[in-house]
Amino acid sequence: MDPIMHKAHAADLVNAARIRAGLTWAGLAAAIGAAPVWTTAALLGQHPMTAAQAGVVVEMLGLGDDVAESLQQQPNRGSDPAVMSDPTIYRLMEAMSVYGPALKALIHEEFGDGIMSAINFKADVTRRADPDGDRVVITLDGKFLDYRW
Amino acid sequence: MDPIMHKAHAADLVNAARIRAGLTWAGLAAAIGAAPVWTTAALLGQHPMTAAQAGVVVEMLGLGDDVAESLQQQPNRGSDPAVMSDPTIYRLMEAMSVYGPALKALIHEEFGDGIMSAINFKADVTRRADPDGDRVVITLDGKFLDYRW
Amino acid sequence: MDPIMHKAHAADLVNAARIRAGLTWAGLAAAIGAAPVWTTAALLGQHPMTAAQAGVVVEMLGLGDDVAESLQQQPNRGSDPAVMSDPTIYRLMEAMSVYGPALKALIHEEFGDGIMSAINFKADVTRRADPDGDRVVITLDGKFLDYRW
Amino acid sequence: MDPIMHKAHAADLVNAARIRAGLTWAGLAAAIGAAPVWTTAALLGQHPMTAAQAGVVVEMLGLGDDVAESLQQQPNRGSDPAVMSDPTIYRLMEAMSVYGPALKALIHEEFGDGIMSAINFKADVTRRADPDGDRVVITLDGKFLDYRW
Amino acid sequence: MDPIMHKAHAADLVNAARIRAGLTWAGLAAAIGAAPVWTTAALLGQHPMTAAQAGVVVEMLGLGDDVAESLQQQPNRGSDPAVMSDPTIYRLMEAMSVYGPALKALIHEEFGDGIMSAINFKADVTRRADPDGDRVVITLDGKFLDYRW
Amino acid sequence: MDPIMHKAHAADLVNAARIRAGLTWAGLAAAIGAAPVWTTAALLGQHPMTAAQAGVVVEMLGLGDDVAESLQQQPNRGSDPAVMSDPTIYRLMEAMSVYGPALKALIHEEFGDGIMSAINFKADVTRRADPDGDRVVITLDGKFLDYRW
Amino acid sequence: MDPIMHKAHAADLVNAARIRAGLTWAGLAAAIGAAPVWTTAALLGQHPMTAAQAGVVVEMLGLGDDVAESLQQQPNRGSDPAVMSDPTIYRLMEAMSVYGPALKALIHEEFGDGIMSAINFKADVTRRADPDGDRVVITLDGKFLDYRW
Amino acid sequence: MDPIMHKAHAADLVNAARIRAGLTWAGLAAAIGAAPVWTTAALLGQHPMTAAQAGVVVEMLGLGDDVAESLQQQPNRGSDPAVMSDPTIYRLMEAMSVYGPALKALIHEEFGDGIMSAINFKADVTRRADPDGDRVVITLDGKFLDYRW
Amino acid sequence: MDPIMHKAHAADLVNAARIRAGLTWAGLAAAIGAAPVWTTAALLGQHPMTAAQAGVVVEMLGLGDDVAESLQQQPNRGSDPAVMSDPTIYRLMEAMSVYGPALKALIHEEFGDGIMSAINFKADVTRRADPDGDRVVITLDGKFLDYRW
Amino acid sequence: MDPIMHKAHAADLVNAARIRAGLTWAGLAAAIGAAPVWTTAALLGQHPMTAAQAGVVVEMLGLGDDVAESLQQQPNRGSDPAVMSDPTIYRLMEAMSVYGPALKALIHEEFGDGIMSAINFKADVTRRADPDGDRVVITLDGKFLDYRW
Repeated sequence: MDPIMHKAHAADLVNAARIRAGLTWAGLAAAIGAAPVWTTAALLGQHPMTAAQAGVVVEMLGLGDDVAESLQQQPNRGSDPAVMSDPTIYRLMEAMSVYGPALKALIHEEFGDGIMSAINFKADVTRRADPDGDRVVITLDGKFLDYRW
Repeated sequence: MDPIMHKAHAADLVNAARIRAGLTWAGLAAAIGAAPVWTTAALLGQHPMTAAQAGVVVEMLGLGDDVAESLQQQPNRGSDPAVMSDPTIYRLMEAMSVYGPALKALIHEEFGDGIMSAINFKADVTRRADPDGDRVVITLDGKFLDYRW
Repeated sequence: MDPIMHKAHAADLVNAARIRAGLTWAGLAAAIGAAPVWTTAALLGQHPMTAAQAGVVVEMLGLGDDVAESLQQQPNRGSDPAVMSDPTIYRLMEAMSVYGPALKALIHEEFGDGIMSAINFKADVTRRADPDGDRVVITLDGKFLDYRW
Repeated sequence: MDPIMHKAHAADLVNAARIRAGLTWAGLAAAIGAAPVWTTAALLGQHPMTAAQAGVVVEMLGLGDDVAESLQQQPNRGSDPAVMSDPTIYRLMEAMSVYGPALKALIHEEFGDGIMSAINFKADVTRRADPDGDRVVITLDGKFLDYRW
Repeated sequence: MDPIMHKAHAADLVNAARIRAGLTWAGLAAAIGAAPVWTTAALLGQHPMTAAQAGVVVEMLGLGDDVAESLQQQPNRGSDPAVMSDPTIYRLMEAMSVYGPALKALIHEEFGDGIMSAINFKADVTRRADPDGDRVVITLDGKFLDYRW
Repeated sequence: MDPIMHKAHAADLVNAARIRAGLTWAGLAAAIGAAPVWTTAALLGQHPMTAAQAGVVVEMLGLGDDVAESLQQQPNRGSDPAVMSDPTIYRLMEAMSVYGPALKALIHEEFGDGIMSAINFKADVTRRADPDGDRVVITLDGKFLDYRW
Repeated sequence: MDPIMHKAHAADLVNAARIRAGLTWAGLAAAIGAAPVWTTAALLGQHPMTAAQAGVVVEMLGLGDDVAESLQQQPNRGSDPAVMSDPTIYRLMEAMSVYGPALKALIHEEFGDGIMSAINFKADVTRRADPDGDRVVITLDGKFLDYRW
Repeated sequence: MDPIMHKAHAADLVNAARIRAGLTWAGLAAAIGAAPVWTTAALLGQHPMTAAQAGVVVEMLGLGDDVAESLQQQPNRGSDPAVMSDPTIYRLMEAMSVYGPALKALIHEEFGDGIMSAINFKADVTRRADPDGDRVVITLDGKFLDYRW
Repeated sequence: MDPIMHKAHAADLVNAARIRAGLTWAGLAAAIGAAPVWTTAALLGQHPMTAAQAGVVVEMLGLGDDVAESLQQQPNRGSDPAVMSDPTIYRLMEAMSVYGPALKALIHEEFGDGIMSAINFKADVTRRADPDGDRVVITLDGKFLDYRW
Repeated sequence: MDPIMHKAHAADLVNAARIRAGLTWAGLAAAIGAAPVWTTAALLGQHPMTAAQAGVVVEMLGLGDDVAESLQQQPNRGSDPAVMSDPTIYRLMEAMSVYGPALKALIHEEFGDGIMSAINFKADVTRRADPDGDRVVITLDGKFLDYRW
């Protein structure tokens, strides 16, 4: 009896196979008919996939059933703090440190006392052309949940 | 000679006067002709205002020149970690912990090696009606900066 | 213009007046018609009260309008880590450290991938008589939120 | 002479065998006649099992005596902080950060100076149907221990 | 309405008056008929006193009713980590770091799976004459609590 | 040339052999004629053993010379912070957090400015029968060392 | 007898007077004949000034002798970690996190085993015009110190 | 399918081969026609190389295609905090702690509100002869980015 | 009744008076007939002084009885971590991080299993002339304490 | 191509061979003609050795060329914080926490504003006979470096 492959190891194998096959995250997302951010997060270990989704991925990438089994497991979510200091990710954290209290104030002003759900939630990242340099546009879209006793 | 009023104290006074006068952050933003997230962040101490902007704010709120002087100063930016664990703000941090590596992967896939600037950057928060419950939509929009030696 | 009284100071005043008047948290909750855990949390600074609720409290306790104003403000929620190591509170944290992964596994088994909301949420604490020593029974009751993209 | 299998490794093997056999945590609990939260916690490494309990589990799951031996050992209890930031578990921690001081105040009001034991303690998690969405109900039930010199 | 005097401030006043009056902690303990460690801990803010005990203390020390009121309050227990690195206290922590796992193993061997209560608990510190230098003997005496579901 | 076996690995082997042979820590202590807390701490890696002591242990347990060699090495003392949050050990730490400043005050009152040595030190753990439930009694006994320049 | 004014308070007064007088850090540096980075660091509390330097500064800024006395004191050097996360400062830290090991490798390759002194050290910040946007050029210039026993 | 070699392992192999071949970091930089700091950082895992650059390196060093593949991957940037306390690197951090606020003030004075980019950025380290001991001169050169909404 | 003056405040007053009177730490030490490191540490709050020593100091410095009372109190010893990162102090810590394990190995080799006491301990700092630059020589001299059960 | 042996592994092998051969650190130091603290630190991984020194060591200890190669590499210096809490090392840290500010004050008084170098530095540990118990005498001897711009 082997334990189920750790999701971090499955992610390493998916990434290696993806690069060697010349495939993109967006292409994998299209193949399983899911959003790119969701699909990438799932393949990096943050969401469980269905058996069908996992099956498409391992077939496209020439990986084994052990990878497919791993991709379907319930994850422990969240990232190692060391990863969060990578500059590309850190800028997102810095933006929250600078603008978080302002976003909180405006959420309360518009919606009342509550939060934007991070569970009933989706995210997208797109390119917006700009003559001064193209821009990364990240959209965070979550259901408002009011504090309700 | 008094030191310049600390921005946290100015923010407390702005907030108290704003609430007692029945004004919104959005209303203050409209009065100075700036974006709501920028204006709220500036009044909470994260951006310097121009003398004209600060003057409009203190006149609307019946505050003194010491507040206006404070609002114009260069800040030390960032928020106390204790504030970042407020549930409304924490959900943003959690989303970055769950989706940050996926956003990084997709930024690299679309733009190459680089970051979304948090300096040449704007943010917005809006309400999107939804029959299952309205949604908070936060847009982060920053210039792509490639690692360029 | 004075800043709004800090919620920690309002809580100190409410607590002092409550003790000197011989009133209980449960009694204050009954007076405003709200649940005991909600009311106590609100008076300790974790929830905003309505003007009516705050008015009842300050009248019962002989406190001023500045306290009532403070009680109505939107809080930054959460407790100082130093407080969380008080033995009465720490036992709750220890229980989560010992049983948290089991509770997570059982939530997923019963409900699927998601969480118990801490926003659409209520809590209660009661006494249950037991010949071996009475027991504290804490109920946490939150809406299940499934990860839904 | 091999060292005794580490409980984390035993938990991985139990979980893998459980999933591949299509068994639930609740089913394993029923098989050994113990509560679901206790059983799940024990199989994840937080409680020692009796030889009889461990024997039933490894027979149901087709695992070896080395797993059974491991399940009977005295644990070092507690979870890695990284696990505690998983959103499903974090919501429990957040609830304690928001409501912990209120629960402490109400325990003292009802019982006097003391704690809810986390040792003479049991927990349960159930589903409560609700037209606005079913709810997770977690009950923490511990003996009151007064500070007694 | 003044808030109740903070227990740290009451402890500072008790200590100052005690020193200026030439009284010992042991003498205060004898006066209220309680154990020295309990009394000292209570006066330093870790236990609530009864009104009678607090009354004896403030009368002996010439302190006011505000101190007596403070001494009777329910504390948030525990010490600032900075205090725990004082060498006299640190040696106790170091002993636990070196011998804690051995004490745990022997508690389990003698009593089974459980803990020594820190609530139903008493402590004492005495001098034991020794020709090689007198010794500090600290006794920790707590009820065994077995893990009991 | 192999490195000397790490003391944590030796401790795992000692513990496994001890359990499989049905021996107690107290029994091993008696066999080498040393105190139970010292012996258990030494076998868990906190003290070096003499060659004779190590020889008795490995012979009783059927372990190899590599274990005996490891048991004789000078340790780096102290425990991983993760271990210190095990509830059985944590109660000892909590007691120090609650009573540490009181113990310090009483040590100074009785002995003057100094510490209880944690080096010229011994500890014991015993059971004391009590009709309300037997008690764990831990004695810490260290030479007083005065601050002496 | 008043204590000497804390350097952080002196820095606040210097900064307030500087802004109100319309003076620059560079102008203050020129007035005392010292480098801009050194002067600014000294006025912010990181270096002691001579009596002559401090006298020039307080006269230019209309501040009192208490400020001049403070500016001459030996500092405890270093900045609060909260300040180091300001984005303008953080980029310097991030550059060290990304390039620090490379700088170390090249220092060792060119100079041997040793360090760049941060004591026998000077720093400068200048503007370099660039058609793609002007650049900040920071020079760190410290004596090489070889590990020399 | 093997995962792609971890960049830390590739760096270890590059470094071992470089030393055994008697090559310098500067020599490798010259061979690929890139700056020494950039090249060293890239080979230590902080920048992706082009296939051509990686090919030159592995051929010079007699390493395999698996190393070349690793060197081309997008990194997670940043260094382990343990590495940052090496004295050679720590002096750079200390300089930022002592001079960071001064550099920030002078950047704002010369350029306005903004930062020196750490992305559109280059660094160099050179030797400057000095009769009192040669000096390490590190130049940090980044584009100024103004806070621009 | 005032609390006893905090030792940090007494140290600030001693230091201010010392500087204004043009006295040295060494001079104060000579006046009370104690070692310079001991005296300076005591005046900075790390040791209690006798009434006679405190009396000499406050008379030399023109300070009040409240300072003398404070200097005689039992301290909570140790320094704020922020102070330990001052470069002059940090070098001592760095030396311990680099040489600590070697010092430990040599202490064990020469003395056996034990420690250098930090209680029965004295320290000195002297200047040693050297043509390459004078040297700071710090001597740490503590009684060897063997682990003795 | 193998990576160069990690210095921690080389240190483990050196230590094992040293113990089995009955050699002392001091003996190894004498054999290579270097100071005992330097030699021990170098063999534990804190300094690079020359090829000649490394050659003598591996020949005396019967170790391989891979160890000799490792001993010659440039280290990343510093010790794991876990090691620093070993009691023998911790006493050194505690002494710095208690006496560090006093040593700093006396260094400034004797030498002016600057530091004791930890690079141009040597250390020694000796035994001093004392009728009350022999003493460990540690000498830290570093060049004074003044803050020199």
